Amino acid sequence: MPQPLTALIPRLREVCGDDGVITEQHRRRTYESDGLTYHASTPGVVVLPTSTEQVAAVVRLCAESGVPYVPRGAGTGLSAGALPHSEGVLIVTSRMRRIIEIDVDNERAVVQPGVANLEVTRAAAPHGYYYAPDPSSQQVCSVGGNIAENSGGAHCLKYGFTVNHVTGLEIVTPQGDVVRLGGKAADAPGYDLLGAFVGSEGTLGIATEITVRLLRAPQKVRTLLAAFETMDAGGSAVSSIISAGVLPAAVEMMDALSIEAAEAAVACDYPPGAGAVLIVELDGPAADVDAQFDRATRMCRDAGAFEVRTADDAGERARIWKGRKSAFAAVGRISPAYIVQDGVVPRTALPEVLSRIAELSAASGIRVANVFHAGDGNLHPLVLFDDSEPGASERAAEVSGKILDLCIEHGGSITGEHGVGVDKACQMPEMFSPDDLETMDLFRSAFDPGGIANPEKLLPTPRLCGERPGVRKGVHPLVAEGAAEQF
Amino acid sequence: MPQPLTALIPRLREVCGDDGVITEQHRRRTYESDGLTYHASTPGVVVLPTSTEQVAAVVRLCAESGVPYVPRGAGTGLSAGALPHSEGVLIVTSRMRRIIEIDVDNERAVVQPGVANLEVTRAAAPHGYYYAPDPSSQQVCSVGGNIAENSGGAHCLKYGFTVNHVTGLEIVTPQGDVVRLGGKAADAPGYDLLGAFVGSEGTLGIATEITVRLLRAPQKVRTLLAAFETMDAGGSAVSSIISAGVLPAAVEMMDALSIEAAEAAVACDYPPGAGAVLIVELDGPAADVDAQFDRATRMCRDAGAFEVRTADDAGERARIWKGRKSAFAAVGRISPAYIVQDGVVPRTALPEVLSRIAELSAASGIRVANVFHAGDGNLHPLVLFDDSEPGASERAAEVSGKILDLCIEHGGSITGEHGVGVDKACQMPEMFSPDDLETMDLFRSAFDPGGIANPEKLLPTPRLCGERPGVRKGVHPLVAEGAAEQF
Repeated sequence: MPQPLTALIPRLREVCGDDGVITEQHRRRTYESDGLTYHASTPGVVVLPTSTEQVAAVVRLCAESGVPYVPRGAGTGLSAGALPHSEGVLIVTSRMRRIIEIDVDNERAVVQPGVANLEVTRAAAPHGYYYAPDPSSQQVCSVGGNIAENSGGAHCLKYGFTVNHVTGLEIVTPQGDVVRLGGKAADAPGYDLLGAFVGSEGTLGIATEITVRLLRAPQKVRTLLAAFETMDAGGSAVSSIISAGVLPAAVEMMDALSIEAAEAAVACDYPPGAGAVLIVELDGPAADVDAQFDRATRMCRDAGAFEVRTADDAGERARIWKGRKSAFAAVGRISPAYIVQDGVVPRTALPEVLSRIAELSAASGIRVANVFHAGDGNLHPLVLFDDSEPGASERAAEVSGKILDLCIEHGGSITGEHGVGVDKACQMPEMFSPDDLETMDLFRSAFDPGGIANPEKLLPTPRLCGERPGVRKGVHPLVAEGAAEQF
Repeated sequence: MPQPLTALIPRLREVCGDDGVITEQHRRRTYESDGLTYHASTPGVVVLPTSTEQVAAVVRLCAESGVPYVPRGAGTGLSAGALPHSEGVLIVTSRMRRIIEIDVDNERAVVQPGVANLEVTRAAAPHGYYYAPDPSSQQVCSVGGNIAENSGGAHCLKYGFTVNHVTGLEIVTPQGDVVRLGGKAADAPGYDLLGAFVGSEGTLGIATEITVRLLRAPQKVRTLLAAFETMDAGGSAVSSIISAGVLPAAVEMMDALSIEAAEAAVACDYPPGAGAVLIVELDGPAADVDAQFDRATRMCRDAGAFEVRTADDAGERARIWKGRKSAFAAVGRISPAYIVQDGVVPRTALPEVLSRIAELSAASGIRVANVFHAGDGNLHPLVLFDDSEPGASERAAEVSGKILDLCIEHGGSITGEHGVGVDKACQMPEMFSPDDLETMDLFRSAFDPGGIANPEKLLPTPRLCGERPGVRKGVHPLVAEGAAEQF
């Protein structure tokens, strides 16, 4: 263990108590990765604070001694955003799981960062409310982690991402200051640092208290599952629905390979022989949902659906969603290993990009299962490979990378909802110009001049990505120059 | 004219052409204030660039010579955010008014910053779309100015502020770099600087190309006007409507004094004897609008409305809105001078705050007319006074300031949609802690280390506000320290 860290441990114990500091190697290893397990690193020390004051004191100790720290929620992230630093402190929020307030009058919930996403809805439900962002991992993932990654979910087509639902934060900055951004109101004067903080992947500080918008539970929810012979037919149904001005709560699509996987894993009993399955969910006032649901059903049939099933109660809905919700895990049934990719294309480019992915797959012999949020063009290709076969993982990684290139080429993005983390930091220069990245770096340095907050995440660094244009080299010279001119 | 500015003028002419640079004193005076005319200052020089390249070249010249600049759109702002600097360059975007693209497939418009807000809707309307943010000044105010101030409007209860409708920006930073934030997609990796830029009041740079979301024109719009004997009765109708889960596109309220003013100015023919008038507008799918409209009407009657008028076509709607839309200007008919205030309180605190405002008015003898976005607690009290009466303007300013204190006391905010500008910079420390303001200042300095972009706006400075805690003193010492440690 490096010297600065060893010296820190007794002081961390003073702050978090003996049971709030983990130093034994076998216990530290529990935290070696997040959901993206192919990046792993054992943290130098793990702390489990229980309050804002403890978080601030830990961060101040790190800042004083120049020790890096990494924040971690439930560890379900998929971009290695919570990959620990081997010479740093891992700050885990799992003991901060108090729901502080359900403010029904102002339609807000105030929670600690370790609260699980679904717990917010559970606490709001008796009042007729719910919390909208619903990542697949919502039973376990933490609200603090959702803030870090600006998490989405199946319903962000209609309801937006986490950033659209957070109205206030208490944060601990990388200098250990406790700062408030926003509040319960919809807007506040000054810079909207709240929006910039959400999705900043732990590089600007740690959210220690979170105020989110609660939405009224919709009067009615209806879901349909339509089976098509081809992906093109399914895609054309999506186009008709969206361009007719119907705004579903969710529009999800799965291809034959992912249907096969889901069938093998959970026997979801989707229509046999389907080349594509489309799930469309509508919610809102009953009169409107019924009218739009009939239109959406008709448009699916017109686009060639050979079977349409509809669900009107929670049990039937759960049966329709079962295959989709299990799709990622299910792929394990048909492949020893796989990469979950996350990219975005403008919705109008979907058919073209899907056929290019099929070409890539055919040319490389690497199977790709497509599961995606069709309504907003957020793809989750699952790149399948056998890790016991020499060279297979490299070929899979290559196909996975080329899929992102396709997204960028078509005016899309390298991540829709999983974040950049360590995993995609080196691809940021493919999407942003050196000026763009310099501007982001100036911003990061303003919060974290010492570079201790989740270093090497989000922005490319020479150590990770080699020397190339747009790769950050520490605090941007303009900050230094500007400061030097004034002092 | 100070020396650095004189030296700059020939170079500005090289960039913008002779007719793009205004130096004559009488022509410069045209720009001496924005819509908040009691702050005025003649700009050192005015430039009228026509392209991103010209804006970037002008800003680079300013940065090189340390000359401050102020950006200006249509000059309709209400917080003196575009107040010129007497020794600086005023960069006016009025010649950048091209609608670059209406992208119907992706539901986006791309425009230059000088385009008037309503022009976006006009260009989108033939395709069945519109641009949602609708400040009262929408016929003339510029989209660039809307970005700077994060403008709202009567419909932001349902549709949100400008920030919720901007998905991409090309900006010129205070160093003269051209940077892209976001794009046509709903989300992008990296820091959401887009959100922080919107509402930054020109302190982080100038938006030179703007991509906004277009919304489908609603299938149906219905509007009702309900007259009540008292503000309390009107307020209780608002509470019933919102807490029943009806989400109107707009909920506006006017008190007796503002109704009197509107009547005098535009003969809007609102129900005689009303102590409060409530306007509720619903839009969306026809079936839903009809159902909700009947509920809203019933709730107004239950709360004591003695007259309810309804409008189903554009002509009838315009008649209902006429009084409300003219209210600010109309106050000129009943008072020689007035201050338009802009504050926010949680909706649940509205009745209490309104009665405290009435007490303030009674105690001071200063009349206050209340016009407000009742649905989201955004108050626009009009503080009336006679500027020929000695001491009256000071007394009015005092009442106006106390109204903001009331807003802060009740957990609200010092501005809802007009921004901070020069006008409220000194009140920021009443709402934010020194740590909060320091964090904002670090952020500002990251973009603008030289402090040349719209200086003395948004954050308090010693020159404006005197020496007190939370007042910025130039680049924050942490930037300098952090930089010094690393270089």
